[in-house]
Amino acid sequence: MAEKPMWEQIGSGFVQHYYQQFDTDRVKLADLYTDASCLTWEGEGFQECACLQSLPFQTIQHIITAQDHHPTPDSCVMSMVMGQLKADQDQVMGFQQVFLLKNVDNKWVCTNDMFRLALHNFGA
Amino acid sequence: MAEKPMWEQIGSGFVQHYYQQFDTDRVKLADLYTDASCLTWEGEGFQECACLQSLPFQTIQHIITAQDHHPTPDSCVMSMVMGQLKADQDQVMGFQQVFLLKNVDNKWVCTNDMFRLALHNFGA
Repeated sequence: MAEKPMWEQIGSGFVQHYYQQFDTDRVKLADLYTDASCLTWEGEGFQECACLQSLPFQTIQHIITAQDHHPTPDSCVMSMVMGQLKADQDQVMGFQQVFLLKNVDNKWVCTNDMFRLALHNFGA
Repeated sequence: MAEKPMWEQIGSGFVQHYYQQFDTDRVKLADLYTDASCLTWEGEGFQECACLQSLPFQTIQHIITAQDHHPTPDSCVMSMVMGQLKADQDQVMGFQQVFLLKNVDNKWVCTNDMFRLALHNFGA
């Protein structure tokens, strides 16, 4: 029997898969979204995850340091992730990201995705 | 006419009201939740916002440095906030918080709330 609630398994499973995919072959991330998914990357909004492919780095590594998952009233799962990333030869940076996951046609997809580097916590 | 989309007005209006209320009289924050709202504070889950009243500080000040808002497929608004806070005489700390807002009986309430101090971005 599962020890963790179902929504936590869904959220943490998605998070693990997402960053593994991001760090190895981020073109395939498109499978995790729908055409109507809403993405915000450093405050810039997109409605296509194609933007993830065109981000200005060759290699990236994510490390997750904390994650929280909630069930929502509309049977979605909301996940908040904190971690560190290293892109190419840049210095390690903190980041936070939020996903809203929804079951569409028996598959969990990401309908909303917001990403920010942690530097915003420390003002301009 | 409004320049910002409705969901952004709802999200930014909530965020402004929430932190203003938090910094002046956080007992009244209860009005912004429902009995079924789901809260996570530094990884600890609660289903009652009474916990906000019992947090271990007397005075607190929040400064918002970045915020993002999305409409969701179920007509909710998801808001991610980054900022800094100062509790009592402690040093200033970065934080991130996510809210899911839903219109219930013609009023926008917070159904999900996740909070983390920014220190998690930098690992243990």
